[in-house]
Amino acid sequence: MTHNIAILGASGYTGAELVRLIAGHPSMRIAALSAERKAGRPMGEVFAHLAHLDLPDLVRIEEIDFAGIDLCFAALPHGLSQAIVRDLPRGLKVVDLGADFRLRDPLAYEKWYGKAHAAPDLQREAVYGLTEFYRADIAGARLVAGTGCNAATVQYALRPLIEGGLIDLDRIICDLKNGATGAGRALKEHMLFSERFSDVAGYAQGGTHRHLAEFDQEFSALAGRKVEIIFNPHLVPINRGILADCYVEGEAEAIHAALAARYADEPFIHVLPFGQTPGTGQVTGSNLCLIGVIGDRVSGRAMVTATLDNLAKGSSGQALQNANLMLGLDETTGLKGAPLFP
Amino acid sequence: MTHNIAILGASGYTGAELVRLIAGHPSMRIAALSAERKAGRPMGEVFAHLAHLDLPDLVRIEEIDFAGIDLCFAALPHGLSQAIVRDLPRGLKVVDLGADFRLRDPLAYEKWYGKAHAAPDLQREAVYGLTEFYRADIAGARLVAGTGCNAATVQYALRPLIEGGLIDLDRIICDLKNGATGAGRALKEHMLFSERFSDVAGYAQGGTHRHLAEFDQEFSALAGRKVEIIFNPHLVPINRGILADCYVEGEAEAIHAALAARYADEPFIHVLPFGQTPGTGQVTGSNLCLIGVIGDRVSGRAMVTATLDNLAKGSSGQALQNANLMLGLDETTGLKGAPLFP
Amino acid sequence: MTHNIAILGASGYTGAELVRLIAGHPSMRIAALSAERKAGRPMGEVFAHLAHLDLPDLVRIEEIDFAGIDLCFAALPHGLSQAIVRDLPRGLKVVDLGADFRLRDPLAYEKWYGKAHAAPDLQREAVYGLTEFYRADIAGARLVAGTGCNAATVQYALRPLIEGGLIDLDRIICDLKNGATGAGRALKEHMLFSERFSDVAGYAQGGTHRHLAEFDQEFSALAGRKVEIIFNPHLVPINRGILADCYVEGEAEAIHAALAARYADEPFIHVLPFGQTPGTGQVTGSNLCLIGVIGDRVSGRAMVTATLDNLAKGSSGQALQNANLMLGLDETTGLKGAPLFP
Amino acid sequence: MTHNIAILGASGYTGAELVRLIAGHPSMRIAALSAERKAGRPMGEVFAHLAHLDLPDLVRIEEIDFAGIDLCFAALPHGLSQAIVRDLPRGLKVVDLGADFRLRDPLAYEKWYGKAHAAPDLQREAVYGLTEFYRADIAGARLVAGTGCNAATVQYALRPLIEGGLIDLDRIICDLKNGATGAGRALKEHMLFSERFSDVAGYAQGGTHRHLAEFDQEFSALAGRKVEIIFNPHLVPINRGILADCYVEGEAEAIHAALAARYADEPFIHVLPFGQTPGTGQVTGSNLCLIGVIGDRVSGRAMVTATLDNLAKGSSGQALQNANLMLGLDETTGLKGAPLFP
Repeated sequence: MTHNIAILGASGYTGAELVRLIAGHPSMRIAALSAERKAGRPMGEVFAHLAHLDLPDLVRIEEIDFAGIDLCFAALPHGLSQAIVRDLPRGLKVVDLGADFRLRDPLAYEKWYGKAHAAPDLQREAVYGLTEFYRADIAGARLVAGTGCNAATVQYALRPLIEGGLIDLDRIICDLKNGATGAGRALKEHMLFSERFSDVAGYAQGGTHRHLAEFDQEFSALAGRKVEIIFNPHLVPINRGILADCYVEGEAEAIHAALAARYADEPFIHVLPFGQTPGTGQVTGSNLCLIGVIGDRVSGRAMVTATLDNLAKGSSGQALQNANLMLGLDETTGLKGAPLFP
Repeated sequence: MTHNIAILGASGYTGAELVRLIAGHPSMRIAALSAERKAGRPMGEVFAHLAHLDLPDLVRIEEIDFAGIDLCFAALPHGLSQAIVRDLPRGLKVVDLGADFRLRDPLAYEKWYGKAHAAPDLQREAVYGLTEFYRADIAGARLVAGTGCNAATVQYALRPLIEGGLIDLDRIICDLKNGATGAGRALKEHMLFSERFSDVAGYAQGGTHRHLAEFDQEFSALAGRKVEIIFNPHLVPINRGILADCYVEGEAEAIHAALAARYADEPFIHVLPFGQTPGTGQVTGSNLCLIGVIGDRVSGRAMVTATLDNLAKGSSGQALQNANLMLGLDETTGLKGAPLFP
Repeated sequence: MTHNIAILGASGYTGAELVRLIAGHPSMRIAALSAERKAGRPMGEVFAHLAHLDLPDLVRIEEIDFAGIDLCFAALPHGLSQAIVRDLPRGLKVVDLGADFRLRDPLAYEKWYGKAHAAPDLQREAVYGLTEFYRADIAGARLVAGTGCNAATVQYALRPLIEGGLIDLDRIICDLKNGATGAGRALKEHMLFSERFSDVAGYAQGGTHRHLAEFDQEFSALAGRKVEIIFNPHLVPINRGILADCYVEGEAEAIHAALAARYADEPFIHVLPFGQTPGTGQVTGSNLCLIGVIGDRVSGRAMVTATLDNLAKGSSGQALQNANLMLGLDETTGLKGAPLFP
Repeated sequence: MTHNIAILGASGYTGAELVRLIAGHPSMRIAALSAERKAGRPMGEVFAHLAHLDLPDLVRIEEIDFAGIDLCFAALPHGLSQAIVRDLPRGLKVVDLGADFRLRDPLAYEKWYGKAHAAPDLQREAVYGLTEFYRADIAGARLVAGTGCNAATVQYALRPLIEGGLIDLDRIICDLKNGATGAGRALKEHMLFSERFSDVAGYAQGGTHRHLAEFDQEFSALAGRKVEIIFNPHLVPINRGILADCYVEGEAEAIHAALAARYADEPFIHVLPFGQTPGTGQVTGSNLCLIGVIGDRVSGRAMVTATLDNLAKGSSGQALQNANLMLGLDETTGLKGAPLFP
């Protein structure tokens, strides 16, 4: 059986990554692709690397006949999804890749995104898409909210430690190194090649990045108390990849053991031997998340490093994994490709 | 039915790329991996991005029991293959990725490689591995010689034009832009990151590059006369990809028509609409070769640009495509992955 | 004596490069900086790497009091300079870095730039700024038109050969590899880091690039007949640098000898020993142009490779060199910095 | 008056950077260049970007006549300097760029470098080369020990805070992002372009990096008690630049004020307005160190970010600054070049 898929917002990088992944999926077929400003153009013109595929042209959302669609991915700019998803047919399964449905609390949404949510009912209904921790809910969900790419990376590193009471909750520092595709395809001066090629610099630091809303929601729920982490991302001149270095206070070997135990049966999350940390180059293009733990000469301190490809496991790969679950398929279908290196 | 595969020289980039591709192949199983200096180590230690796969440890060639092997890839340093392949069991199918069996003429080999060939009988028996032009021979071959990555790129651009008598054979200029992985994993000062990061420079120019031996052999055979092209490669700071700009004298539209007709039914070779040229970023990680043709304001001149991923279609992807043919499989098996972009 | 300098269009890359160079000039002082959209902001906010310098804030052009200015650099977008320079005080020395005054023939300007020139009198008066070939005229000029960065690179490689009758004028092919800063700081999707990081691709090929107008003007004048070269540029993922490979028909050693003789006394143009070609990494940040010549196994063919930093010798460095001449200074003042490598 | 300079170990990156800087120095002349394995070759062959300079050929150290040398830079591999410097003429001023004389305590040296020091007398005599904190001692020294590049960056961020008692000494976490030139020109597989181009990964983490010996020595002396920081460096795909993010506990605004006050009169150390952090691209090729301070939504936490060019201010620029002091020159001579951007 083939499932018909629509991708809304297909002219961005996560949209293109969905097309790449679904092109290799044995039981999905791309039936519709939307993009507002680029509607009317062939997908292969907007993304030349996909020109060899047999794909529908880009259309406006209102041109899509959703009657024949089994599942819809929404890879839209933040803030646009809520109204669009609200107006989709009620029976349609939806995986949203943006930020619109990640927060369960309307007040938290308003605080971090600066305006009231347009679809609070859906906000409550949406299941948070961190597959390995919400698997059963996702399988039964109509609407799944993809996590932030940074949010996924850091949660893989820290959730089992918070849950297990293994680290000091008041002293969690997460320093991230982020590839440029995380900023999307929007035109911004500081994202020009010439500006980024030889620069490493922070952005949205000091407790201002919106993914903090997800950390607050998830970690506080896990801990049963308010948890606020320190989280500072940086732009590094690579395209894909997040390296999340999480500095914690706790026993390094116990931390490693807890992570290794938690992820032993996970198909995509792998914990390296104690004392090794991964690099972004080990996951490019794959749905893997690699985690390493090291101690320090200062006792009681550890660093947990997690890495994943922000466009794959951090976004479109996660979305496809969730879509597989929602459609009753093996969740690894179409996602087993090994990383590209070098 | 599963075919057992051995990869000799698995610690280099083409070896790792074979592992990546075969890991997604439905009817091949990697049964043995060899590497001389790194024998005894797990493959995941030599290539961390492959650590999540269930792979045999690296061994020396003499430790491999070839009785259970159906097909062997030799991804060895140039010059080593000939003696090693000569000593393999006679019935074993072999795809050699190096330069050792590309030239049919022992004198040509000696001229370009500076020593006599150690297995001239095999040299004569080997089939040249440019799939789209030697398909039938490859399907029946015991030993296939993979082409040079530059040699493949340029031949895809020029063979139909030489065969069709569409261009001046005495004025073919090929200017290539080459990603760094083409130089392999050997330790050379000029291949350090610091040396290459911000540099674009030529190498092996002026009629000295060994891939010229292949061009001379193939183009002269096609034309029925001696053909010597001008061929100057350059190192550009990307990892994968060759952009081959071939400046020719001939009618641009006729050239485009000939290429489009020749490759209309090829699964991996695509000719862009007239006037468009491809970039290396459109093929990364895939088995595609894209070809574009443009004219010039100077009439009677054209440029044919071909691009492919040197590790994939230019080497390991080509090798797998040929192996599929040799084993009676659909030649596209395991090779349909779309390019990775960005 | 200190000369007061104004830079119009200081928020682009060539403007910033002028500031960098003039900051180290012993007898120039930056008295005014203009930028239309960014007027009112400190230069150090628009270019953080210049924040430590004591510079005037950005203003609109009309806010500048030109009475106290000795020389003005116009680093404006193409097409804007002609009207602005026309309206500057008549006695003010001006070095224009854009395309507006490069062509002496109003019809040629109209043909390549698609509209009539707004200041044809100035167009006739302007001296073409290729220092080494127009030195005396530049020294006495009121208005100097900086050359295109590609135009400079290729002319350094070819002018002595055309003048000396050493090459076939009907078979000149120039294949260029260009760093991203040549595209300026304007927001274009294909210039985003994510698009360019791992891509090498042609642009403005097939006889359409506007620098061809300069080649036609200069080479035809030199040869005393119409000369049309083939010229295809490419974007490579580096910031600074042009590598111009010029394929010509002629005797390689005679070509080398002519170039070596012509540039023997030039402070910034260096010809490498025969058989060596330069890389872009050898000139980064400097005012050097390096030239190499190689022959080929096909007799009667040669490649002349020239490289320079497009922002320095290709644009702002050239402009400063010309300004030095116009102000009666040693032309190398402030330009002797060695290249940055790695 | 011109000072004659010798550079030992001129075939490495810090040696080449010294040549670049000294080439623009008004009162220094490079009289001798040594390199063991490359002795006998012209410097311009070993570093093509310096070929246009009039430089002495590389020789072995024993070939240098030190009688005519005023000051000698030793840019030798770690461990080699101590015996070589010991055997130089007693009156010769020496700036050592390696690790051999950074530690005052022979036991500390032995602990971190694994062998006894060969010149413990000199070790005691050497002045630690962090100019802004040892200026007077440096001016009078015969032997100055250049700091580690990471050690310099982090000390600029933290010394005034430790001295001022502004931060919790038991909770200092320094996460560094390091350009590839910091690894030098030695041939290592993981430093090949192909390995690093698309990878971000840690190295020498968990309290193992040798620059910790400098931190321990300097910070403990400043604080009057044992101070052990957490320090984890990372390789990022740029050539030059260190971004040091120092996570501390203390009042952010007080921290900013202390740094701004301390460096107000320093020519090369600049503190950005509160709330801004610098990027590596703002210092490339210059002798600047930029420092930024941000607070966090979690009160009592701050991040101090320092950046410098590891080859310039982190090594060869620092060395030249110290040499200027030792020779009685203005310490900024030859070091005022603005950064190269883009």
